Amino acid sequence: MHFPKSPAVATDVLIFSVLEGKLCVLLIQIGSGPYKGKWALPGGLVEMKETLDEAALRILEEKAGVRGVYLEQLYTFGDVDRDVRGRSVSVAYFALVNGDHYNPRTTDYYAGIGWKDVRRLPAMAFDHKKVVEFGVKRLASKLAYSNIAYALLPREFTLSDLQSVYEVILGRTLDKRNFRKKIQEVKLVKETGSMRRTGANRPAKLYAFSQSRPTLVDVL
Amino acid sequence: MHFPKSPAVATDVLIFSVLEGKLCVLLIQIGSGPYKGKWALPGGLVEMKETLDEAALRILEEKAGVRGVYLEQLYTFGDVDRDVRGRSVSVAYFALVNGDHYNPRTTDYYAGIGWKDVRRLPAMAFDHKKVVEFGVKRLASKLAYSNIAYALLPREFTLSDLQSVYEVILGRTLDKRNFRKKIQEVKLVKETGSMRRTGANRPAKLYAFSQSRPTLVDVL
Repeated sequence: MHFPKSPAVATDVLIFSVLEGKLCVLLIQIGSGPYKGKWALPGGLVEMKETLDEAALRILEEKAGVRGVYLEQLYTFGDVDRDVRGRSVSVAYFALVNGDHYNPRTTDYYAGIGWKDVRRLPAMAFDHKKVVEFGVKRLASKLAYSNIAYALLPREFTLSDLQSVYEVILGRTLDKRNFRKKIQEVKLVKETGSMRRTGANRPAKLYAFSQSRPTLVDVL
Repeated sequence: MHFPKSPAVATDVLIFSVLEGKLCVLLIQIGSGPYKGKWALPGGLVEMKETLDEAALRILEEKAGVRGVYLEQLYTFGDVDRDVRGRSVSVAYFALVNGDHYNPRTTDYYAGIGWKDVRRLPAMAFDHKKVVEFGVKRLASKLAYSNIAYALLPREFTLSDLQSVYEVILGRTLDKRNFRKKIQEVKLVKETGSMRRTGANRPAKLYAFSQSRPTLVDVL
């Protein structure tokens, strides 16, 4: 059987990181064609012999040099006019990484690659501004009921470090006492037994996540 | 530009209802072809000039005679071998309805249509068993943090009716006192001022949902 004409299937990957106190997303700058100069998520068409997950991982590695991250399917975008070159739907994936560990590089086909502040996005190609905004909302809501932040922090961190990551993603400040109380209640983190001393400040206890794989917990 | 060969795009719709104390899904029986006699979700290919949401609504009406429901995108399934007829990906949608209001009917092309207990599914076509199981899990997790159950109940109901719906979907019994306490705390429902008298039982207060559109609340 041959299926009738139907939209092409693409995948786009949102990689988030917190860098210099800002929630950032990894973008590629398009080098030619109708979107020349605009920025886009690493993405591409799904091949006939790979699953959606496999396509997302392949494209992320090919176009951004990023591998070994845990990707989660976000949403499928299918506006009729989302790509001026033709009708396609895009299955978006997302992941959080500790940006210090990654040195993104892209192919010659693209004009550039870089981490961009999600709150000050450059001119974007396709419907990718909408995709990024959707991803930021999902991320903020996942903070409230999962340990997803573990992917953004080093192995050991202070409770202030953790609160900062929450505040950067949520885009608002949190009450320190309530935050710490809730974090302890739900056993999100555990003490490592070590302390960090910075300048003249009182040394701060270091913590680690109780789980270093995706788990549901009620944090907020 | 003409995109290279890529999987076809379909959509499949999960309509859930609670009927006779069971969580049910609306299925269609296939009348011919390699899946003849098997049951499937109402579904079909996305056309070039419609969005994914539009396709899901159109297909649900064409194939199951159901309209006017609030559909939510669930997940996109893309296993390479999910359809023996050719490579396709399917964007699944889901909704909850009060089954008493619907009289499903299908086209001549199908051998039958009916509500099936999600815990005793008949032989299923494609990857639809997996899709239904995924939907049931999502539904159960949404019960915990949203008012999604409003779509399953009549306008007025008792707290026992509400608890039954939760128990049927979760597949486990809930503690009556804790459930009622939490429901009141999060203001999921409000008293209507009316009572229901059944047989020799003490009359029961009737309630309505505080919101009759999708809202996030921490219920469980």
